[in-house]
Amino acid sequence: MVSQEIIRSLTIKTPSKIVLLVLDGVGGLRVAGKTELEAAHTPHLDALASCAVCGVADPVSPGITPGSGPGHLGMFGYDPLRYEIGRGVLEALGIGMALGKNDVVARGNFATMDEQGIIVDRRAGRIPTEKNQELCALLQESITEIAGARVEIRNGKEHRFVLRFTAEGLDGRIEDTDPQREGHPPRPPAALAPEAEQTARLIGLFLEQANQVLRDHHPANTILLRGISQIPAIPSMAELFKLTPACIATYPMYKGLARLVGMEILSTGETIADEFKTLKANYDSFDFFFLHIKKTDSYGEDGNFEKKVAVIEEVDRSIPELLSLNPDVIAVTGDHSTPALLKGHSWHPNPFVLCSPFERVDDVAEFTEAACAKGGLGRFLAIDEMPLMLASALKLEKFGA
Amino acid sequence: MVSQEIIRSLTIKTPSKIVLLVLDGVGGLRVAGKTELEAAHTPHLDALASCAVCGVADPVSPGITPGSGPGHLGMFGYDPLRYEIGRGVLEALGIGMALGKNDVVARGNFATMDEQGIIVDRRAGRIPTEKNQELCALLQESITEIAGARVEIRNGKEHRFVLRFTAEGLDGRIEDTDPQREGHPPRPPAALAPEAEQTARLIGLFLEQANQVLRDHHPANTILLRGISQIPAIPSMAELFKLTPACIATYPMYKGLARLVGMEILSTGETIADEFKTLKANYDSFDFFFLHIKKTDSYGEDGNFEKKVAVIEEVDRSIPELLSLNPDVIAVTGDHSTPALLKGHSWHPNPFVLCSPFERVDDVAEFTEAACAKGGLGRFLAIDEMPLMLASALKLEKFGA
Repeated sequence: MVSQEIIRSLTIKTPSKIVLLVLDGVGGLRVAGKTELEAAHTPHLDALASCAVCGVADPVSPGITPGSGPGHLGMFGYDPLRYEIGRGVLEALGIGMALGKNDVVARGNFATMDEQGIIVDRRAGRIPTEKNQELCALLQESITEIAGARVEIRNGKEHRFVLRFTAEGLDGRIEDTDPQREGHPPRPPAALAPEAEQTARLIGLFLEQANQVLRDHHPANTILLRGISQIPAIPSMAELFKLTPACIATYPMYKGLARLVGMEILSTGETIADEFKTLKANYDSFDFFFLHIKKTDSYGEDGNFEKKVAVIEEVDRSIPELLSLNPDVIAVTGDHSTPALLKGHSWHPNPFVLCSPFERVDDVAEFTEAACAKGGLGRFLAIDEMPLMLASALKLEKFGA
Repeated sequence: MVSQEIIRSLTIKTPSKIVLLVLDGVGGLRVAGKTELEAAHTPHLDALASCAVCGVADPVSPGITPGSGPGHLGMFGYDPLRYEIGRGVLEALGIGMALGKNDVVARGNFATMDEQGIIVDRRAGRIPTEKNQELCALLQESITEIAGARVEIRNGKEHRFVLRFTAEGLDGRIEDTDPQREGHPPRPPAALAPEAEQTARLIGLFLEQANQVLRDHHPANTILLRGISQIPAIPSMAELFKLTPACIATYPMYKGLARLVGMEILSTGETIADEFKTLKANYDSFDFFFLHIKKTDSYGEDGNFEKKVAVIEEVDRSIPELLSLNPDVIAVTGDHSTPALLKGHSWHPNPFVLCSPFERVDDVAEFTEAACAKGGLGRFLAIDEMPLMLASALKLEKFGA
């Protein structure tokens, strides 16, 4: 990994085009002798691997399981250890909020407090989503502004909601108010940096008013905040890599992550075929495409091996459409692994296929974890994927004399 | 990579000998199904790979194409991101100037300026080399000293020359005066650090005098400076690694790079056979030899696949002479790749062969990019080559208790 300053000094604008196809959580573990990729029939992805250089990429560092934020930042060429995506930011992106630098967001939980101010249920008995909607509407109606900051409350499922404060000069470095265990009072929203003290006071005032509004709504008679955060100050892909990048994704969170690094978000349909159609329709207008497939991850999280296999096969059937565009560079990978066996993200490296006329084709002939691990790229860090893609597209000048 | 402080603390002086054979730009890309190394008939290099541990090394970082400076520094065990070799320094080394810490050097171009002081041709119509020689002699005769600094001007080809200022306390952190585009005046030689302000003034005075001297020599009536720089303050290989190192190279630039890290430069002939003879003749006097083969890179830059293959085969024929000396450690590699297909340096990792009685011989049986990529060393950074060579020669003590 070289510094962003060096990368910025080496990148050049050229007409060559890069397509980064991400099957979220595609890597897996063997069940009955095969991983999801090994079980899937993928003639087109295998053919792509056959004329590419392959490898396996650690999303953050060996052994480290990434969330979606670090998983995607790494692939996009941003050090996931330098740019932190807070839980509140990720939740807000997940429900489609477009965040700016004046926003501080948090994930909220409705909770139950007793008369002594002790939290007796951190999830308010998992109230139904309808009740949540009703209470969020009530809070929003009662509190639209606190000390000059605009307040926005958007319900999620069951007891969860997203809270946003908007004003100049807010600072999200504030501790959770969730005490993490029942039997304790909520924690104060303490500033983690002197610059955040004003925002901490503002959140304290909001919590007092919210408690007033919710007083008679037992079990949801208070709220707890977690992951209070702001979007990081992050240079755009245009600025760093001189790319004109576009995102094709069906889920809000991934569009949000792409927007953070300055991608244009293309509107697309619900299906994988729709996403590839959107790529084709917009192919002339951009030089970098991030095409995100969500359901490999969703079925992995569900532990549904067969359906994850089916999604991989569905992507495979769209590969000819991608090839018909003849991009200069095609990269296929995941942002992290989500083995059905583990029903969650995992630390295993991602298979990575890099197809370009200027790479050293190895003898990997299958898009699987084991085959890619024997590829010419060996094992490397996901943050080096962007320099590799840029180099393959002849978009990087020589370093040093 | 460990720090230089750690390496320095671990190295010990022993009688064992290391030969680092560098085929400049040897790595390639396939043309008609084979890379240059795959097309070359190399029985001796293949035999060496068979009894060695092999791998592929990224010169700087995956995807980054290095210039000759960073490419060599990495192999010599110096972080190429820490020690920068300026363009002026590289040009000066390239024409055989031995540089010291009191030298500031720049690459100069003769250029054409109109009456309003605007640059109308940044290369003065690419004046013939003879004209360049004549003008450099005129400048040198007219200006031998500026504000206490000695001035030296040495012509290159066409419009290019090298300019050196020598005095105590000079500082090379100064911006280019070349405006990069025609239609603009030259830029002032601006200091990039407060310590460089005196040197910037001195260069400004030189430029005024040079303009006077050249006034009537249209089209070469002014000069532009680029890559103003100084050699980095770099510890010697003797100091860091406790080696007594020697360089065998035919081109000035590589001798210059070797001199920077304190190697003794051995005089040698023009051919590859001459270089191996020089190795034999001096074998008893040093414990580290850097033997540099230039023409693999030159033919790569020319896009001449066949001649690059022929140079590799010529080196192969000299390997028995190297083996007859029975060095404790032999390493064979490149400083970067120069695929004939790309006609220039590239980002691809270098095949690396490490032959020592104390390495884990793998089953790589060919000195090619693809074979080495499957070797026991896997993929690693070139800066780790020196610790590996030193360890193999039993020149590194244990780290920590």
